[in-house]
Amino acid sequence: MGVVASLEKEKPDTGISLLTSLVQSDMERVNRLILDMAAANAEMIPDVARHLIDSGGKRLRPMLTLASAAMFGYRGDGHVKLAASVEFMHTATLLHDDVVDESEMRRGKAAARMVWGNQASVLVGDYLLGQAFRKMVEVGSLEALAVLSNAASVIAEGEVMQLVAAKNLSTSEDEYIRVIEAKTAALFAAACEVGPIVAGADDKTRKAMADYGLYLGLAFQLVDDALDYGGSSASLGKRTGDDFREGKITLPVVIAHRGGDAQQRAFWARTIEQGTIVEGDLETATELMHRHGAIPATIERARHYGDKALMALEDMPHGDHRRSLLDVVEFCISRVH
Amino acid sequence: MGVVASLEKEKPDTGISLLTSLVQSDMERVNRLILDMAAANAEMIPDVARHLIDSGGKRLRPMLTLASAAMFGYRGDGHVKLAASVEFMHTATLLHDDVVDESEMRRGKAAARMVWGNQASVLVGDYLLGQAFRKMVEVGSLEALAVLSNAASVIAEGEVMQLVAAKNLSTSEDEYIRVIEAKTAALFAAACEVGPIVAGADDKTRKAMADYGLYLGLAFQLVDDALDYGGSSASLGKRTGDDFREGKITLPVVIAHRGGDAQQRAFWARTIEQGTIVEGDLETATELMHRHGAIPATIERARHYGDKALMALEDMPHGDHRRSLLDVVEFCISRVH
Repeated sequence: MGVVASLEKEKPDTGISLLTSLVQSDMERVNRLILDMAAANAEMIPDVARHLIDSGGKRLRPMLTLASAAMFGYRGDGHVKLAASVEFMHTATLLHDDVVDESEMRRGKAAARMVWGNQASVLVGDYLLGQAFRKMVEVGSLEALAVLSNAASVIAEGEVMQLVAAKNLSTSEDEYIRVIEAKTAALFAAACEVGPIVAGADDKTRKAMADYGLYLGLAFQLVDDALDYGGSSASLGKRTGDDFREGKITLPVVIAHRGGDAQQRAFWARTIEQGTIVEGDLETATELMHRHGAIPATIERARHYGDKALMALEDMPHGDHRRSLLDVVEFCISRVH
Repeated sequence: MGVVASLEKEKPDTGISLLTSLVQSDMERVNRLILDMAAANAEMIPDVARHLIDSGGKRLRPMLTLASAAMFGYRGDGHVKLAASVEFMHTATLLHDDVVDESEMRRGKAAARMVWGNQASVLVGDYLLGQAFRKMVEVGSLEALAVLSNAASVIAEGEVMQLVAAKNLSTSEDEYIRVIEAKTAALFAAACEVGPIVAGADDKTRKAMADYGLYLGLAFQLVDDALDYGGSSASLGKRTGDDFREGKITLPVVIAHRGGDAQQRAFWARTIEQGTIVEGDLETATELMHRHGAIPATIERARHYGDKALMALEDMPHGDHRRSLLDVVEFCISRVH
């Protein structure tokens, strides 16, 4: 019954409805746990945390953890704790990201830092990360802890790499892929690897699921990059052009800059490197991207990684869970249409 | 030989020389490990980390971890990894603290955020915290992980509590003690508890060592608070009056405000609550504190906690390690003279 209701409710998102229905009851436990974990002696903490938590993120990462454990027949509550920890790691990153990027919006509403300030965003992010570690320690799997603590380091390293590359137009496509592999794909990989770990799957299976998450994460981020220059604010949950205004190097910029003539490169230098942006620049940037096919090229690259994600699942146990994970790849890429 | 050389070198700090000589060879391993852990693909990370790491902090917390393990006959390298993790947790907190407090100096030199910016300080702090967790997972003790991940949450919670209380002059003495118990003493407690944990000591011993660290941390922070209104910048590693300029409520302020008349309370409201500070205000604040005996009262409270720290060690194995930990209490309190 729950499944049918969920399928009906989720009709517009057919791509992900099998996943949401399969993990629905576990996700309810994750959501309750998330509220518990946001509790604290300082009232400001749950206020800030809920601002983000209630803002309708898809919670894709914790769903991946749940499905990745269930696919290997896991029974217990470890996957629920790990899923909540993964979501908290993600939320902590968002809080710090918005401070670093000076973002004004997140998921279609004011960024937490615009309401409570940068100071609160930094410290509440630290608290959520601490709570994530506490909860994953409770699960008692040193292997899962190794995967997730490694991801925490790699994500922060990727953020620093992005900060350093932020204004640097000589960033190559490969360098850019390394940045998003660290800052985005590493958590997707960890989210998918801890499932088979708690379920006691073998090393080859763990590796395949980590690969699936990694490639899915790369595809996801590249589609996000493309959407920033072509999507609508409603579907993206942030304003179109945020990356541009923040001087962020993304793959569309790398491609458009690489193909540009001297005048176009001067445009990118002024806007991205020097951060001098005037009325009409976003439209010019978007126009230049279309001229150089930067958006289709970015989506093609996303599809390439999406295909690798699908291939990683080839030897995984066939059935609903595997099918739901195949769907996620298509869902992520089709966001762009 | 190493011990003799160290004792001679450390003569000016007789209070802590027994500890430094006992842990000297282990601390060399900790220092090497710290440099390893600061390595990263983004060059900025070791640069920022070393700026703080090389700035001559006392590394009291990792020394406490080493001595707390050695006291119970621990043989292995787990305590070295835990000690480095504790120091990284501390360093990450300092990086974020300086952003939150908008501090300009740390340990007698420019704060990292003044050199690399707030963004880098936030992200490198995240990286160091991730590296700390990775390293402590390697030790393989779920009990030590539970203690340290709990400390990470509590520290961040304490920082948020301090942020909320920052401008609030109605903060009571007890409320203030709860803040510093979380933001400072919790890490001292964890640093001292993981030693007996890896050494396989019993629960009563763990509890005694955690108590020792907790009370030592409280005494340490209260002395720090007193020094901000009476010490010299050289011995404190930051400018005298930083707490005042940042509008921080500390015990000396709580005491002076509580005892003040309407005119004096108006002074505290203007300076601490509203943050309007003019030439001569720090001198007035210091004078008001002396008039109300706020500094001696703060030191007396520190000594009270110091005595509790000494008592916690009563049933611990007698010998050099225990004596070195007794010395640390006196050392922390005597900084104020």
